[in-house]
Amino acid sequence: MKYGARNKMEGTVTLIKKGTLMCSVTVQVPGPSEVSSVMTLDSLEELGLKKGDKVRAIVKAIHVLLVKD
Amino acid sequence: MKYGARNKMEGTVTLIKKGTLMCSVTVQVPGPSEVSSVMTLDSLEELGLKKGDKVRAIVKAIHVLLVKD
Amino acid sequence: MKYGARNKMEGTVTLIKKGTLMCSVTVQVPGPSEVSSVMTLDSLEELGLKKGDKVRAIVKAIHVLLVKD
Amino acid sequence: MKYGARNKMEGTVTLIKKGTLMCSVTVQVPGPSEVSSVMTLDSLEELGLKKGDKVRAIVKAIHVLLVKD
Amino acid sequence: MKYGARNKMEGTVTLIKKGTLMCSVTVQVPGPSEVSSVMTLDSLEELGLKKGDKVRAIVKAIHVLLVKD
Amino acid sequence: MKYGARNKMEGTVTLIKKGTLMCSVTVQVPGPSEVSSVMTLDSLEELGLKKGDKVRAIVKAIHVLLVKD
Repeated sequence: MKYGARNKMEGTVTLIKKGTLMCSVTVQVPGPSEVSSVMTLDSLEELGLKKGDKVRAIVKAIHVLLVKD
Repeated sequence: MKYGARNKMEGTVTLIKKGTLMCSVTVQVPGPSEVSSVMTLDSLEELGLKKGDKVRAIVKAIHVLLVKD
Repeated sequence: MKYGARNKMEGTVTLIKKGTLMCSVTVQVPGPSEVSSVMTLDSLEELGLKKGDKVRAIVKAIHVLLVKD
Repeated sequence: MKYGARNKMEGTVTLIKKGTLMCSVTVQVPGPSEVSSVMTLDSLEELGLKKGDKVRAIVKAIHVLLVKD
Repeated sequence: MKYGARNKMEGTVTLIKKGTLMCSVTVQVPGPSEVSSVMTLDSLEELGLKKGDKVRAIVKAIHVLLVKD
Repeated sequence: MKYGARNKMEGTVTLIKKGTLMCSVTVQVPGPSEVSSVMTLDSLEELGLKKGDKVRAIVKAIHVLLVKD
């Protein structure tokens, strides 16, 4: 499986917070650091995600903002 | 300085590729891994970025796609 | 502090609406006009935002859609 | 015509920069301030944009990043 | 009305799910297939959307991720 | 493979336009209609895409703008 995006990180789900329509999923990636994703509860259910699951986090480079002091 | 985004990574610029209007900037972050950002050449000039510069990469959680095998 | 984005507006927070996971923040910017941002409650807490705070609203040009009659 | 987005600004095209595939369009909006949009040359051609044209710039609130000192 | 985006699909609203701040709207487009949009409840109200309404779904090409097996 | 996004369409690559840094890829999906994606040439190379290839186009619902007459 190949993705048309520059940023791909593998990690483990450590936290799922559910709202009424959306949720946030925190993924521990090597570093150590964390990546957070917000999606609909429908997508969460479709992924069937639970703590400890291995996932890949994908981010298109155009969505990355660089900031310099 | 505080950012209204869940994902913030500090790193060092290792590569800048310029197109005619846009450019991509690769940032080495701890892990070790890399983050790539695409922006306009105007933004690149405004940032004054060059290899070796310290930058922060910011990504709103809504832009992160999770994929599961 | 410099941002790798074309659109940067300074303004004052006039309204914060909280959902269960996300929130929206309205910012009065010169014009007079308003800019709205949606983020997680976690990001809101980290920003420590309240009405009357001065903030900067950042938007990458790629996220701006132009429409013509 | 109504848009499912929180941020809508009307203005006048002041600058078009063309790359090989993408372009940037600068729009003067009340303030006085400017908004920049990046799109494909295909979209530019479809819009038929030229300097002086009246356009509307649309930004979903989720694409607005707030920053606080 | 012309849009500076590559992807434009017309369809009919078939489902609206409301959260506390955000909502999701499902649109039946030719195919047959569905397109889902997430927006704020404020935007939903401004659109005045209800089941059966005709709408257009707009997506900038930069937001489309391609995946290949 | 499961994706944390509401919109997933399968199709066939019909056109690839290359710029100096970015490219656009047009995908024929059932309908009949087309979906366009813009990505970096680096991502295109990594995908190894060519005309006729089968791909999946993924779009998070938050990136879909609805418009109503």
